[in-house]
Amino acid sequence: MVQPKYHVFICTSCTITGQQRGFCYNKGSVPLLQKFMEEITDRDLSGEVVVNNTGCFGICEKGPIVVVYPEGVWYGNVSEEDVERIFDEHFEGGAPVKDLMI
Amino acid sequence: MVQPKYHVFICTSCTITGQQRGFCYNKGSVPLLQKFMEEITDRDLSGEVVVNNTGCFGICEKGPIVVVYPEGVWYGNVSEEDVERIFDEHFEGGAPVKDLMI
Repeated sequence: MVQPKYHVFICTSCTITGQQRGFCYNKGSVPLLQKFMEEITDRDLSGEVVVNNTGCFGICEKGPIVVVYPEGVWYGNVSEEDVERIFDEHFEGGAPVKDLMI
Repeated sequence: MVQPKYHVFICTSCTITGQQRGFCYNKGSVPLLQKFMEEITDRDLSGEVVVNNTGCFGICEKGPIVVVYPEGVWYGNVSEEDVERIFDEHFEGGAPVKDLMI
């Protein structure tokens, strides 16, 4: 496998019973994920930054949760307005956005 | 955040429209994920090994797909029969199971 430089996991509250319900979903994590997808296209980072939706990380009160591997950076309370900063500072600048980290 | 030693992501083909359909799901990735959960409990590895379900990784023909971070080990065609080996050799032994890697 060719490893992505940044593999981004975003909780969309999908359950193994096929339902999508929970705090991150209710707080807009699906449009948040779509914003990440758009930025990847706009910045031509396909393959370098990869995004997947996930089920619950168990820290719902801090959602929407975004986890970035291989570094293991956990972001909380992420809004669509934060996405450009995450790309500018973290994925293109190389430094995680400290005030969003949990 | 306290980082898990092994963060396991298993495609259960969950989509952002709330449906669960696709190759990994059809090939039994939900019972596969449940087998990982059972092993974590049986071996008392809660917190050290964490499992999440995800949407599609885009390499469906090699599914069910299991990705382990922070190492970035990608396993393909994983069956319930492989789970004990992954725990024995990788999570408890420290060496990824080479013949399952893609």
